[in-house]
Amino acid sequence: MTQTMQSPVETDALIIGAGPVGLFQVFELGLLGIHAHVIDALPHAGGQCIELYADKPIYDIPALSVCSGRELVERLLSQAAPFKPDFHLHQTVDSVERQTDQRYRVQTSLGKVFLTKTLFIAAGVGAFLPRTLKFEGLEAFIGTQLHYQTSNLGIAAGKSVVIVGGDDAALEAAIALCHGNAETNEPLAQGLTLIHRRDVFQAQTETIAKFQALRSAGAVQFIAGQITGFGSVNQRLTSVEVTDTSDKPHTVNLDVLLPYLGLSPKLGPISQWGLAMERKQLPVNTATFETSARGIFAVGDINTYPGKKKLIVCGFHEATLAAYGASEIIFPDQKTPLQYTTTSTALHKLLGVASESGF
Amino acid sequence: MTQTMQSPVETDALIIGAGPVGLFQVFELGLLGIHAHVIDALPHAGGQCIELYADKPIYDIPALSVCSGRELVERLLSQAAPFKPDFHLHQTVDSVERQTDQRYRVQTSLGKVFLTKTLFIAAGVGAFLPRTLKFEGLEAFIGTQLHYQTSNLGIAAGKSVVIVGGDDAALEAAIALCHGNAETNEPLAQGLTLIHRRDVFQAQTETIAKFQALRSAGAVQFIAGQITGFGSVNQRLTSVEVTDTSDKPHTVNLDVLLPYLGLSPKLGPISQWGLAMERKQLPVNTATFETSARGIFAVGDINTYPGKKKLIVCGFHEATLAAYGASEIIFPDQKTPLQYTTTSTALHKLLGVASESGF
Repeated sequence: MTQTMQSPVETDALIIGAGPVGLFQVFELGLLGIHAHVIDALPHAGGQCIELYADKPIYDIPALSVCSGRELVERLLSQAAPFKPDFHLHQTVDSVERQTDQRYRVQTSLGKVFLTKTLFIAAGVGAFLPRTLKFEGLEAFIGTQLHYQTSNLGIAAGKSVVIVGGDDAALEAAIALCHGNAETNEPLAQGLTLIHRRDVFQAQTETIAKFQALRSAGAVQFIAGQITGFGSVNQRLTSVEVTDTSDKPHTVNLDVLLPYLGLSPKLGPISQWGLAMERKQLPVNTATFETSARGIFAVGDINTYPGKKKLIVCGFHEATLAAYGASEIIFPDQKTPLQYTTTSTALHKLLGVASESGF
Repeated sequence: MTQTMQSPVETDALIIGAGPVGLFQVFELGLLGIHAHVIDALPHAGGQCIELYADKPIYDIPALSVCSGRELVERLLSQAAPFKPDFHLHQTVDSVERQTDQRYRVQTSLGKVFLTKTLFIAAGVGAFLPRTLKFEGLEAFIGTQLHYQTSNLGIAAGKSVVIVGGDDAALEAAIALCHGNAETNEPLAQGLTLIHRRDVFQAQTETIAKFQALRSAGAVQFIAGQITGFGSVNQRLTSVEVTDTSDKPHTVNLDVLLPYLGLSPKLGPISQWGLAMERKQLPVNTATFETSARGIFAVGDINTYPGKKKLIVCGFHEATLAAYGASEIIFPDQKTPLQYTTTSTALHKLLGVASESGF
């Protein structure tokens, strides 16, 4: 993780979470003339909609009888596009501190710093972060020999590599390392072993077929089993210990360990931001969805209030009222009028649509 | 108005108002296994979306960058269709009374009676009813010689007819009465006058052209002016008095008077139902959107609570939580679980979609 200090980004609104509710928050703020920055742990917008049900049907978005998670995200991105949100992806929020000027100083895991008048926590069930191998001391190798869920395979060039996992990401990494450079057609890795808990893969048929062909050709070794430990010499990771499905132990030597164990949501350090919490949720006032801290709003699955249901349709409403709540803080000297997108020429200008459109 | 008594319709849920929020209420109740009846003053579903902005663009429905009022209604009707709502259109609610068995007895202007466990007031700004001519005593002729906003032109056959208005409905009625029966090509009316406050019409270009052609041909008389009174003999309406735009008075004899003055929303007798009200709105509890009366919920523009914004997106949320609130009353012995449409096979069955769909 780069920890270079950059000059802070000053903004009226900062949204943590680029899931469906965070994206609609961008839109509702935009209608009130407020530009937003958005932080997300994933390398793309969409949150759970992409991680958990990109290709699965959702039936209860109002006026959309059916749409996939991916379609919903694309629709919300395109709706928010006129307001040109700035996305800061692949990073989580490390700290939130109130300054004496009442703004919040927010710092991310990549060292980016924001000074914002209002903060929207649209973090759903938390940041989607890679699942990790739980062995004491193993974390010392992160970023040097151990890379979770990486797509940067150059780090494995000429090395002895162990991949862990059996999904598309794991198999695709194995295939890419075997095929290596398209020009030379030499394998990228020096030696390659894939370890998965059983000899069954959860991936696309075509990807599995490609992997099995490489396995038959001896380009990749496969062990069905569990990793039980690791070996190191002079602060260098040298091997993993594996117990296969017949209870036979193996020691697999390696230079680089690449686990693809999927993503799991982590609430992260929200509990250290000084906000009132109830069973890991943020209680909010239902008039504005503000938390216990002035200027910090919580919308979507992360908040709680009497009657709360963790449904996207409720998050859309929460984001709407939160935008009005924020507007009072950002523009303290003016009352925010309710305008309708159908009739307001001011909103048409913001949306970039001609008022006299031939609709 | 027919006042024949019918046997009451017994139901778990009755929704007053078939606008966008009423329609989404049908859907959310349906997901919880609750079938709904819906009453509306208009002869079709859609409410304001159809009356006020059928062909105008709406930009702030989540995940729909732009859609017309008509499209929104069509989408909501199709989303609610799996739950087979029963619509009772072209009638308003006259009375709501709580029975000793805790159910509500609801009677409409057409004499239809409902006994319902839960009632949802999704009445928006009120029932859309025809604007009327305000002359004392004129209302005595309603249903015999005076018909507001009627589409049943058979009542004018062979009669001397006065149409009032200058919109599509008024001009189309005039055209239909001139053309009459397609077979005989004889005009349906014996004599036809159209009165509008000025010689400018708010209708489709084509409709105006047709009307002007008939006017040039002498098939319809036109007076630009205001109706200032009416004449009657032996309890029969005989004429209207008109002052034209040059201040010249006219007496126009007639058998039938057909005003097309548009629709205007009327809150109606809601204030007599014993519910707490605040400035013509119904205060609700934001956990369930229940009013001061157990089992009566208010959703959409008719309700009020701290932070309330009269936006469709908020009505969708309100209808969602109201459905859960109603479920506790309808199924008092079971807790209503939160299920997701993406994963619940029970919901897939209700929606009529195959769980193993090839989506």
